[in-house]
Amino acid sequence: MSDPVLAQLAQVLEARKGADPEGSYVASLYDRGLDVILKKVGEEAAETLIAAKNGDPDPLIHELADLWFHTLVLLAHQGLGPERVLAELERRFGLSGLEEKARRGG
Amino acid sequence: MSDPVLAQLAQVLEARKGADPEGSYVASLYDRGLDVILKKVGEEAAETLIAAKNGDPDPLIHELADLWFHTLVLLAHQGLGPERVLAELERRFGLSGLEEKARRGG
Amino acid sequence: MSDPVLAQLAQVLEARKGADPEGSYVASLYDRGLDVILKKVGEEAAETLIAAKNGDPDPLIHELADLWFHTLVLLAHQGLGPERVLAELERRFGLSGLEEKARRGG
Amino acid sequence: MSDPVLAQLAQVLEARKGADPEGSYVASLYDRGLDVILKKVGEEAAETLIAAKNGDPDPLIHELADLWFHTLVLLAHQGLGPERVLAELERRFGLSGLEEKARRGG
Repeated sequence: MSDPVLAQLAQVLEARKGADPEGSYVASLYDRGLDVILKKVGEEAAETLIAAKNGDPDPLIHELADLWFHTLVLLAHQGLGPERVLAELERRFGLSGLEEKARRGG
Repeated sequence: MSDPVLAQLAQVLEARKGADPEGSYVASLYDRGLDVILKKVGEEAAETLIAAKNGDPDPLIHELADLWFHTLVLLAHQGLGPERVLAELERRFGLSGLEEKARRGG
Repeated sequence: MSDPVLAQLAQVLEARKGADPEGSYVASLYDRGLDVILKKVGEEAAETLIAAKNGDPDPLIHELADLWFHTLVLLAHQGLGPERVLAELERRFGLSGLEEKARRGG
Repeated sequence: MSDPVLAQLAQVLEARKGADPEGSYVASLYDRGLDVILKKVGEEAAETLIAAKNGDPDPLIHELADLWFHTLVLLAHQGLGPERVLAELERRFGLSGLEEKARRGG
């Protein structure tokens, strides 16, 4: 099943693979490599926790957008796309995967 | 813009708000509260980093599904939905927000 | 029980409370507040994971020094000191706390 | 420079290398390997952030003890000891390393 926003964003991220690292944030992440991308994922996860504890919706949405964005960059860098993650989520909840997760203790 | 999988999953998460914490993993997360949900987000972010370093696609997709899933639970717990995060991502890349991020140093 | 290095470092961190944020990294962290300090702790934890997966000892030691350092800044910012954490560790392993942790599932 | 508590704890962790994983939490971590130890480090870092945001000193001390403890297990697993991290911290603040960090932007 397609996802308009994430699929479009994945296309943008794919197209940035040929861009100049000097002129594109995403191209600079690809250029600096996996460890820098993962550092950003860790950083945005920490900021998500902090924003959630602060309780204001807008900064939380902002941090979650940063977190999802950098996981999409990670996927693109690994030659993968968001449709793989969405298919896994679909498989889980379509086949009552949530209950399965509950049984194995999450 | 709608996103079939995430929107459907958000509906499932919303419906679990009335479920028995004993019988539903999601309801048990709501019941145990924000700190437990955030702990799970932090945990899945760490597991994403580890899986990415290991280099196999399947475990990485699995961990990213776990991470996205628990951020969706976080959104639902805060009375928010994934469309807010997707709208923020759309706003950014529609308005060349990626370049903006690059300028402010990411 | 005293710990020369951590105790000395805690004194340095305490002394920086009166320093100019422009001229001291630690004073700038205090000035920017708890969320920025916590963001640094999260960041250094992520970098620790990445360095450990890379397998070289020197970068791992470097990241662990960064991580411990920022937890000491966090303690100082909260009006606490490393002797509290060391006392807790001492209490645990003096009283076979490790087995206790094992029993409660870690 | 020695650190009585951390050095003693490192000795305990070293001694657990011969222990039965069934009977010792630390031995079970060694047995399950690096990824499980790193997952614990990530988890305890997340719990440190959450406890710090909650503002009570005792749970924060507890989580920091958990975090330091699991970084000591990580060091032991890698054949390293806390004296390496302490020496790095000593080197930094003895040689005004904090200012150096400030200059390179922390």
